[in-house]
Amino acid sequence: MCGIVGFIGKEQAAPILLDGLSRLEYRGYDSAGLAVYDAEKGLQVVKAKGRLQVLRDLTREGQEVPGLMGVGHTRWATHGAPNDVNSHPQVSQSGRMAVVHNGIIENYAKLKKFLESKGVQFVSETDTEVVAQLLDYYYKGDLLDAVSKVLHRIQGAYALGIVCADEPDKLVAVRKDSPLILGLGQGFTMLASDVTALIRYTREVCYLDDGEMAVLTPDGVKVYNALVQPVEKETSHVDWEISAAEKGGYEHFMFKEIMEQPKAIRDTISPRLRDGKVVLDDVTITKEDLEDLDRLYVIACGSSYHVGMAAKYILERLLRIPVEVTLASEFRYCAPIVTKHTLALVISQSGETIDTLAAMREAKRLGARILSIVNVVGSTIARESDDVLYTWAGPEIAVATTKAYSTQLAVIYLLGLYFADRLGRVTAEEYSRLVEELRTLPAKAEAILKDTEKIQYYASIYFNHNSVFYIGRNIDYAVGLEGSLKLKEISYIHSEAYAAGELKHGTISLIEDGTLVVALAGWNELFEKLMSNVKEVKARGADVIGIACENHKEALESLVDSAMTIPEVDPMFLPSLEVIPMQLFAYYVALMRGCDIDKPRNLAKSVTVE
Amino acid sequence: MCGIVGFIGKEQAAPILLDGLSRLEYRGYDSAGLAVYDAEKGLQVVKAKGRLQVLRDLTREGQEVPGLMGVGHTRWATHGAPNDVNSHPQVSQSGRMAVVHNGIIENYAKLKKFLESKGVQFVSETDTEVVAQLLDYYYKGDLLDAVSKVLHRIQGAYALGIVCADEPDKLVAVRKDSPLILGLGQGFTMLASDVTALIRYTREVCYLDDGEMAVLTPDGVKVYNALVQPVEKETSHVDWEISAAEKGGYEHFMFKEIMEQPKAIRDTISPRLRDGKVVLDDVTITKEDLEDLDRLYVIACGSSYHVGMAAKYILERLLRIPVEVTLASEFRYCAPIVTKHTLALVISQSGETIDTLAAMREAKRLGARILSIVNVVGSTIARESDDVLYTWAGPEIAVATTKAYSTQLAVIYLLGLYFADRLGRVTAEEYSRLVEELRTLPAKAEAILKDTEKIQYYASIYFNHNSVFYIGRNIDYAVGLEGSLKLKEISYIHSEAYAAGELKHGTISLIEDGTLVVALAGWNELFEKLMSNVKEVKARGADVIGIACENHKEALESLVDSAMTIPEVDPMFLPSLEVIPMQLFAYYVALMRGCDIDKPRNLAKSVTVE
Repeated sequence: MCGIVGFIGKEQAAPILLDGLSRLEYRGYDSAGLAVYDAEKGLQVVKAKGRLQVLRDLTREGQEVPGLMGVGHTRWATHGAPNDVNSHPQVSQSGRMAVVHNGIIENYAKLKKFLESKGVQFVSETDTEVVAQLLDYYYKGDLLDAVSKVLHRIQGAYALGIVCADEPDKLVAVRKDSPLILGLGQGFTMLASDVTALIRYTREVCYLDDGEMAVLTPDGVKVYNALVQPVEKETSHVDWEISAAEKGGYEHFMFKEIMEQPKAIRDTISPRLRDGKVVLDDVTITKEDLEDLDRLYVIACGSSYHVGMAAKYILERLLRIPVEVTLASEFRYCAPIVTKHTLALVISQSGETIDTLAAMREAKRLGARILSIVNVVGSTIARESDDVLYTWAGPEIAVATTKAYSTQLAVIYLLGLYFADRLGRVTAEEYSRLVEELRTLPAKAEAILKDTEKIQYYASIYFNHNSVFYIGRNIDYAVGLEGSLKLKEISYIHSEAYAAGELKHGTISLIEDGTLVVALAGWNELFEKLMSNVKEVKARGADVIGIACENHKEALESLVDSAMTIPEVDPMFLPSLEVIPMQLFAYYVALMRGCDIDKPRNLAKSVTVE
Repeated sequence: MCGIVGFIGKEQAAPILLDGLSRLEYRGYDSAGLAVYDAEKGLQVVKAKGRLQVLRDLTREGQEVPGLMGVGHTRWATHGAPNDVNSHPQVSQSGRMAVVHNGIIENYAKLKKFLESKGVQFVSETDTEVVAQLLDYYYKGDLLDAVSKVLHRIQGAYALGIVCADEPDKLVAVRKDSPLILGLGQGFTMLASDVTALIRYTREVCYLDDGEMAVLTPDGVKVYNALVQPVEKETSHVDWEISAAEKGGYEHFMFKEIMEQPKAIRDTISPRLRDGKVVLDDVTITKEDLEDLDRLYVIACGSSYHVGMAAKYILERLLRIPVEVTLASEFRYCAPIVTKHTLALVISQSGETIDTLAAMREAKRLGARILSIVNVVGSTIARESDDVLYTWAGPEIAVATTKAYSTQLAVIYLLGLYFADRLGRVTAEEYSRLVEELRTLPAKAEAILKDTEKIQYYASIYFNHNSVFYIGRNIDYAVGLEGSLKLKEISYIHSEAYAAGELKHGTISLIEDGTLVVALAGWNELFEKLMSNVKEVKARGADVIGIACENHKEALESLVDSAMTIPEVDPMFLPSLEVIPMQLFAYYVALMRGCDIDKPRNLAKSVTVE
């Protein structure tokens, strides 16, 4: 879960590398480093613990590091504490090889022992140093040959950028199970973990596949397979505007992305609604396939998993097909019951989440058909799926997801309605009503975002709480999970979501005077049941924030300490509206606690290690 | 979630009622009260907020309340704060009717309005007062007739004990969806929520069914249906020893029950193992039924739900039939996909858990076959199931379950092996190996319980933490859920269990210097994976308690701060062993924090309200 970048061309490399790293800092910010080759000074390595700014200051924005080629790294620690020695680039004992790495080398301990037995001395605790040392060990004057030998010995997930002081006319890049993109410019080429690091320089990109090696020179890129045979690659053109990846006047990316949600939902829905029908041209699943489906697995992590939790209610209601929602990290080891009639819905913003990717491959191996919901076009999960439905949220920069979650939900609605219609499991009237509700959803989300003051006020009352419980029933519970995670990840408050009826089976013992409980009661049918739970926690001293639809405004206000309402909506669309006040509440609480909202400690945006 | 008791005979009632309440205090302890009729003094009502001891002191152990008949109540607050006015018994305005009640009257607000419109004045916020006032309103000289009228008007769940000053020769008892047992003695009769309140006086009992009314006199009991027609009832003999419900020399019931687990598991397993085979004579499901099964629902709450989480891994592995584990409180509202080929496994210690009972009835209505796993013989869930497998744990008194959890697991093993064998989905060798492992499980549990000192020492290091995370993968995760709940409910520490791979998708932002993480790594196959997660949290400053099988002792000790080991065992049996150190850790932490271990605040043993 790091970011890597590389440049070779006719300009000074260091400032370009630093700029690229600044776009990748969301992938990790424990430390940052550069390795740049200069004809006079040789291979120079500069690295520092902490945010990228430390490195920028150290090198005077890169000016003090001469040279026309090099690699850079921003780190999220996995092996060894975040300190200078463990920062990347890692260099071999001779000083000839410098390596930046995103991922984990699983057999590094064994390889380290082997190299130590050959007299190699290690300075860091990282798995990456093993790669640098191993490259040096195998290097006999042909870098590509050494890289190929190393690839046959290392196991795990990796994207590597490699500089060799003896062959300064090239950079080498390889990948397996970690993202890596090549950028092709006029007189230069680049590599990066993410396209956002490249688009200021070039929009012509090439995606490297698993096990491939690329040789980058100022004139272009050559790609080889693991046997060092040349491979033909296609290039793609990136359409994103760079401004879409900037904060656009807001103080934080997270707030900007919260406000962008109505647009993102609309962008995701509108092109797929035609004449009152859902049209999914990308989906190749036939009516017969659908009729044969025995079950649906949803495979995801984090907030995408919470989309899956909501999807279970929505899809089971519409399709009457059993849906099982599984954490990707668990899926591989739970001996899942998959048949050729099983459909796996795989959800990932980045399309590179390593646990999700591995689980998807396992599902595929077991015979499932794969339909993925992904935000990043051309990402590994997208490429390896049978069908892809892209969320059109644009780049999401804040570590805590908001608009990706909302657009993933939107795709679930589309998919549910589309499948239900094809299976004939929804009446024409019901279908039309739901499609119409879906069409007006972005406007309802906009209405909620118009009045953020009340939520800001509630945040000012409750921001100093240290233990918070979110309770809800049914689909409200699924939203509670996401609301709780939002608060947790950016404010560092220990919050937890509960199916409301379950509180009394243990957790209610934690409720005491002043404990904060957030009660989600959007589903009208269960409003009274939830208010019974509210009375239970209030009888034990809790402060309660309640959220419900407008028709329950009065009842809600009479029962809770702080009430929020949302427009009325069919229960299946509740998550899209209820989540917005939850996101804003978490945002304002974190703001008042002085937390680093866009880059919460310990977290990285795209989780590409297990 | 209250306890009620009643007595009518030739001895002073109050001391007997207080003794009965002392056995029921595990059902609630917000307040307690008595209503006793005396020929001279009339109807006397004494009640007090707080533990039963307050009432004992107030009445000098009951001596100061004369009279030969009456009812008593120990309360767990649902409607209205725990205070004197809201305590039971509730008395009608005229002072003629006194009522004790366990359950909830759902339409009380409407009935209250009706009575107020007739000029009735209310003093409390309780739903129970409505019953007392309504009885008085309908009373025209025939108590049974008035009760019958009230039953036609009230909705909800209830067990009621009723005293009428104008008819002091009888007690009336009724029930619907809440437990109630009648005791038949020589010259006296009794009523109680639980048999433990009766067995000191009589072992002849009679179970009241839903909607029935009983008239108790010193000479016996007459039972009527809702139309006031007499009903013939059978009586049962209770075999439990009273000593089994006492602490037996230990400081707390919880500790006693932890120590009893090897015996309880053995009692549950042994009679069902014959000649190396699992024999379940009680189960009437045929081989054909099993072959037709499309899926298995596990329905449960709290710790029983955690048994279900483990059961999913165990049963899917052995049977290759999809298992869905659902919180009982959620099941009813999630439009479950049930067919006549669906088996619902219903798990409840008391057999009276209201959410579980309601979910079971819904599953039945939808066509599922019901197999319940219950500890209390003759309980409502047991009686309404197609098949019952009793756990033979004996009475469990501590609110935090230990031996009920362990025996429920034991039944899951038995069931899994029995079904797998009948379905031919396990080889003869594998079957024999697993049966043999099951047979030796109690001895392994005993071995863990022999050395509690180390766990006590760890508790002394960590007891002052306020935020704890339990991490595990696969079946270890299921145990983490239970470990976390144990800590939570008795020590009031906010702890939470995570599938280890999921931490990095948000929650790891809460890890800072000194955060306590409990890492469950019992499953050997995933030991290395879990240790990667341990390194991640340690790199961010966490203190880690690790638990693994003995073969990983050295590796574990080198990686965690505090190591615990358990004997090696097939992964499917891991929960039974891993949970023991978790229970002991929670127990010692709560002890060191000075918590009321057997009766944690806000909690009741048997959750008979929604």
